[in-house]
Amino acid sequence: MKLYNYFRSSAAYRVRIALNMKGIKPENVFVHLQKSEQLAAGYLQINPQGLVPTLVDGDEVITQSLAIIEYLDETHPVPPLLPATPAERARVRSIALAIACDIHPIDNLRVLKYLTGVLKVSEEQKNAWYAHWVREGLSALETRLAADARTGRCCHGDSPTLADICLIPQLANARRVTLDLAVFPTLLRIEEACNALPAFADAAPARQPDAA
Amino acid sequence: MKLYNYFRSSAAYRVRIALNMKGIKPENVFVHLQKSEQLAAGYLQINPQGLVPTLVDGDEVITQSLAIIEYLDETHPVPPLLPATPAERARVRSIALAIACDIHPIDNLRVLKYLTGVLKVSEEQKNAWYAHWVREGLSALETRLAADARTGRCCHGDSPTLADICLIPQLANARRVTLDLAVFPTLLRIEEACNALPAFADAAPARQPDAA
Repeated sequence: MKLYNYFRSSAAYRVRIALNMKGIKPENVFVHLQKSEQLAAGYLQINPQGLVPTLVDGDEVITQSLAIIEYLDETHPVPPLLPATPAERARVRSIALAIACDIHPIDNLRVLKYLTGVLKVSEEQKNAWYAHWVREGLSALETRLAADARTGRCCHGDSPTLADICLIPQLANARRVTLDLAVFPTLLRIEEACNALPAFADAAPARQPDAA
Repeated sequence: MKLYNYFRSSAAYRVRIALNMKGIKPENVFVHLQKSEQLAAGYLQINPQGLVPTLVDGDEVITQSLAIIEYLDETHPVPPLLPATPAERARVRSIALAIACDIHPIDNLRVLKYLTGVLKVSEEQKNAWYAHWVREGLSALETRLAADARTGRCCHGDSPTLADICLIPQLANARRVTLDLAVFPTLLRIEEACNALPAFADAAPARQPDAA
């Protein structure tokens, strides 16, 4: 397998965790987002959205981190990244999507560039935007996880799932804008449990070969 | 089943299509987004994100449209909303996520409200923002679908899947900002094929009981 990867991309970070959990070591191709390498013609042929990550498995070219992770889980079922019943899987997917749809894309690099480049908002306004959507999304998640007995050491039970795979990179992102995370005790407790696992720790941005 | 629904929400529109395809008629509870009913305390207890849709099935309360649709597909497998092999499912999920993560949330009502309310952008700038992300997302999708032999009458083959369930509401949304869609011939062709099916036509915003 080949992974088009970038150390700071939290979508790529999710896929790195999943690959680590499955014990798969892909060949890495680094796509430097700050240098706009994702918009080079060669990469756009592989991924017309110009986003990372992309996974190549034989003839299959798969984009979108959650689609990649579901694919890895179907083709390499051990350990499972989703629980056993439809209702439990729905809960885990819902938590993952609340992050992957409703927090992350609004604070993505291309959106921040539009805010400063086209709408000419100040650096301060840009940071307030970023913090607003992270705070709103994580607050809802904290409420949800704290209130549900199915939350364990991880988002769902005591083993990491797709939900944790989305949560941990989002929390790492939140720290980059110096958001005070102490108001999210459940999320921080889950983060600590997950980051104690090598699959999560080894996927962290600072540990990647392309980290600046 | 009970669906917390709003005629204009394209995430709810997706779930309405899926329910129609499965032949399920839920009880509807309408949550009027323009009147901010999604932020009422009672609804926030059901869905702490304050978004629609939410599906209630017995004791299960499921949020996030794609999690709901995967749940419906697992609990009511006929007709299937995902193809048979992991690689095909990855393709369908990737198309769905390219819409559900990278187009829709950036143009959501709450984001547009932040742009005009907090950042004080003009109506014209707001509409340009909306059109920009729709155009960028649909362009990538047109490129992808036109280039792939697996595209049929629908996004994947000749039967509707999760990908079409996301595409059709997004195209309806795009029309609300008078975007010229003629540059997306593949998407328009698929839209026409899907909207010829009662499951899609009956889910359209204008046909809902709460439509203004």
